[in-house]
Amino acid sequence: MKTRIIEPSQNAYSYPLLIKSLLLSGERYEPDHEIVYSDLIRYDYVTLNQRIRKLANVLTEAGVGAGDTVAVMDWDSHRYLEAYFAIPMIGAIIHHVNVRLSPDQIAYTMNHAEDDYLMVHDDFLALAEGISERTPTVKGVIQLTDEAQATPSSLNLIGEYETLLSNASDQYDFPDFDENSVATTFYTTGTTGNPKGVCFSHRQLVLHTLNMASMLGVYEGQPLLRSEDVYMPMTPMFHVHAWGVPYAATMIGVKQVYPGRYEPNKMVKLYRDEGVTFSHGVPAVLQMILSCDEAKNTDLNGWKMLTGGSAPTAGLASEMADRGVQFFTAYGMSETCPLLTLVHLHESERELPLQEQVPARTKTGVPVSMVDLRIVDPQGNVVPHDGESVGEIVVRAPWLTQSYHKESEKSDELWAGGWLHTGDVASIDQNNSVQIKDRIKDVIKTGGEWISSLELESLISEQGHIAEVAVVGIPDERWDERPYALVVPVPGEEVTAEQITQHLQQYVEQGRINRWAIPQQIEITTEIPKTSVGKINKKQIRLNLG
Amino acid sequence: MKTRIIEPSQNAYSYPLLIKSLLLSGERYEPDHEIVYSDLIRYDYVTLNQRIRKLANVLTEAGVGAGDTVAVMDWDSHRYLEAYFAIPMIGAIIHHVNVRLSPDQIAYTMNHAEDDYLMVHDDFLALAEGISERTPTVKGVIQLTDEAQATPSSLNLIGEYETLLSNASDQYDFPDFDENSVATTFYTTGTTGNPKGVCFSHRQLVLHTLNMASMLGVYEGQPLLRSEDVYMPMTPMFHVHAWGVPYAATMIGVKQVYPGRYEPNKMVKLYRDEGVTFSHGVPAVLQMILSCDEAKNTDLNGWKMLTGGSAPTAGLASEMADRGVQFFTAYGMSETCPLLTLVHLHESERELPLQEQVPARTKTGVPVSMVDLRIVDPQGNVVPHDGESVGEIVVRAPWLTQSYHKESEKSDELWAGGWLHTGDVASIDQNNSVQIKDRIKDVIKTGGEWISSLELESLISEQGHIAEVAVVGIPDERWDERPYALVVPVPGEEVTAEQITQHLQQYVEQGRINRWAIPQQIEITTEIPKTSVGKINKKQIRLNLG
Repeated sequence: MKTRIIEPSQNAYSYPLLIKSLLLSGERYEPDHEIVYSDLIRYDYVTLNQRIRKLANVLTEAGVGAGDTVAVMDWDSHRYLEAYFAIPMIGAIIHHVNVRLSPDQIAYTMNHAEDDYLMVHDDFLALAEGISERTPTVKGVIQLTDEAQATPSSLNLIGEYETLLSNASDQYDFPDFDENSVATTFYTTGTTGNPKGVCFSHRQLVLHTLNMASMLGVYEGQPLLRSEDVYMPMTPMFHVHAWGVPYAATMIGVKQVYPGRYEPNKMVKLYRDEGVTFSHGVPAVLQMILSCDEAKNTDLNGWKMLTGGSAPTAGLASEMADRGVQFFTAYGMSETCPLLTLVHLHESERELPLQEQVPARTKTGVPVSMVDLRIVDPQGNVVPHDGESVGEIVVRAPWLTQSYHKESEKSDELWAGGWLHTGDVASIDQNNSVQIKDRIKDVIKTGGEWISSLELESLISEQGHIAEVAVVGIPDERWDERPYALVVPVPGEEVTAEQITQHLQQYVEQGRINRWAIPQQIEITTEIPKTSVGKINKKQIRLNLG
Repeated sequence: MKTRIIEPSQNAYSYPLLIKSLLLSGERYEPDHEIVYSDLIRYDYVTLNQRIRKLANVLTEAGVGAGDTVAVMDWDSHRYLEAYFAIPMIGAIIHHVNVRLSPDQIAYTMNHAEDDYLMVHDDFLALAEGISERTPTVKGVIQLTDEAQATPSSLNLIGEYETLLSNASDQYDFPDFDENSVATTFYTTGTTGNPKGVCFSHRQLVLHTLNMASMLGVYEGQPLLRSEDVYMPMTPMFHVHAWGVPYAATMIGVKQVYPGRYEPNKMVKLYRDEGVTFSHGVPAVLQMILSCDEAKNTDLNGWKMLTGGSAPTAGLASEMADRGVQFFTAYGMSETCPLLTLVHLHESERELPLQEQVPARTKTGVPVSMVDLRIVDPQGNVVPHDGESVGEIVVRAPWLTQSYHKESEKSDELWAGGWLHTGDVASIDQNNSVQIKDRIKDVIKTGGEWISSLELESLISEQGHIAEVAVVGIPDERWDERPYALVVPVPGEEVTAEQITQHLQQYVEQGRINRWAIPQQIEITTEIPKTSVGKINKKQIRLNLG
């Protein structure tokens, strides 16, 4: 083989992709830009770099070594941002603990990740104390507090964060090491089984950051994140590195505002007082923000908002447009670091009134640079990009988790055939815009095709007298699966299965659905099983059907 | 060692950084944006991708395999852009031949690179034929022409580019391979010795591109390259990948205009007709552009211009400002891929009239993200960032050439101490802005300090009656070196060595130079030795002095 290789491992002059490199430019280009924590703390980028070096000294003196895992339980704060950098930069792994999980689940994830140290906010101190006997790997605890006085605790305390930092040197010579070293870990929860741990390396985070910085900055009509912006996350920092935006914002040198605990009124006040221009969040949080008292008297016009997690409802999207919120849908998941797609508005769309842009802005988005994205049928064949045909989204990109931590079987499923399987079923139109139709587990596989249960539910609900509807697939000898519908009529109305079948027949005639999409059985009922958070529980429906 | 490593080489799901990934987003985000070649050809990004796949088929069918080197001799064209991608994407290496070198030097570089194939424009056909006996490694030649009919040739022709492409399939499944494979090579010429070959890998070019895309796009007041821009290079594509901008522009999906041969009037016409907004070039080219007839009647206001290679003279900078050209200095070299620094204007500077921004815009610039840049004294100690102290610029970054091809001794010099030595001497001020003072070989090392020969020349020339001046260091037993000045008075004026010494004495008193910076000898003369391109030949001056 003739190919000439520049072999980094054998070359003293190679430059590994390490998180420390992301800190170089913010301080140089925008030294005066600020990091703000609620209404409590503000400092500039020069200080941010100093504090990260101080934290590295604190951690090193506490005994944290390369390969150790440091768990963090905090609200969104400057401390969390400092930990995003300092912990990986000394060669350790930061475990972003999902503080919304139950104590049992938190104990499970901390044990599974084999956390060596813990940084914990006073608000979670009782929780940490309660599970301390079940998290025996934790050797020491740094206390995080907004108060002058730290709360006394039975934990093995190293000290209080700000006190420790104030006594630490601001000099630290961060080492070079293998760019494939794990930098971060956190857990993703499904509807079944234990939380699964995903990990990201220095290399993956650097590449995700470089790519995000250009994707969010350089497209016409959507300059989401540029040096003059003021950024405030509304996705918790324990959730996929707050979508990775803090790393990109820090690299560019953007002013950053961390709101602490998510209280809508306080966040809207910070938006106003600090001149926030760019945020991101899931629809539920955005709905809370729009509905809070403080928002009623605040001009939200021009607030650039990345939305993800799930598609915003038509109502929420329309409300955002009414208020002038410039929202853009993005798509990704815990396993994908997360950025995979971003809505891209064409010139003709950008010229419409904001309200008329809603359909374009609520699409799933166009795959971002460096992302190889396909939709494939059940046999793994690539499905055409005609806006109609649906397939499962599978991806390759430089920043996808390579495996679930200590779960080889689930990892093999995730990466079946060498592509990461998202579990989302979508179409792609001729403008390369992806539109998610359903989760694959809720898709009905019938006659060699996939029928979206969500689409079928939407069509059924248009019958006019229907309060709630759920569609699942039930086994069928001839067709593999056939649709089964549970329908709750509007109180006081009467609806029959025949009426629904007739209603759906028009869509068959229009060519919108195939005839085998008409449910085999339609059950008229008074209640549909729900999960603890109020979502339709399709797993339970299937179980009930035996 | 506890560190957990995600080992890409052992992981079937790893994603190497390959140039093919840079093509994904342009077509998806801006499918209708155009690639324009002079007034001859235009097509969209969908076609660009098709043509790159066609070219890959042409090359493969011609016998080009992984690790082969394909030399290109062309003006700036759509063909060159296609070759930037197709050649590395099939695993081969593109050699950008510097067509401005002498035939002997071109033959030297083609032999040294062991070129297997050649793509050559008709304008260079006679040249290629003339050296064909001295370039025996070349097995086949693809002819590039703008005419309907290709010129007959004695070379071993595979065919004419457009004809070959029109007969090729537009399907090609580009392989994955090691991201450290060499993708590009070209030769850099110094004042002495043979040209030296530098190489860049797929990984290095992908990282340079990702970084450039964000650096040129996201800083306030300097949105140099965004999707709505129209880009036309004015640095030849054989020179450091036209500073790497075509790769970044293609990734974003920017409209690109390639001017062919550099004819100032034609380029200004293209600027006007195609709506060019962003270009880059060295001062000599920019001066030609501003002075040409076509520019006299063309509104250049708002043309964003990256300048590099050397600092624009005060006169050129002022003229650009007069015409409203928004110029920004960048710094790099062939060995650095090239981007190292970029001018960054602070808010207070941006608010000034353009003419008053000239001093800020002509600085060397602030190191860009991912670039670790230091200035060091002769002992290798880091020099303070006080805007006064000078040191040699040494750098680390993910995209620096790792060695000169087949020149291990020169490579070791380049990378002495694990940092790439630029050979440039500079200061860095408290705003992290670099200011180059001199080439290290022209710096005078005296009394343990460095004196910039350029600065001394500038001070001497302020005496008022001086047409030309050159300062070099001459050996001195006590001081190591002392300055020696050659001075040519303005015709008709008389200047003595004593007058110059007295003139310089004021700068000693002002603390601007040390007393040992006053030249030991000042020779009044009528002529200063020059190189073939008209630059002061300091090497010759030193030789003359024995």
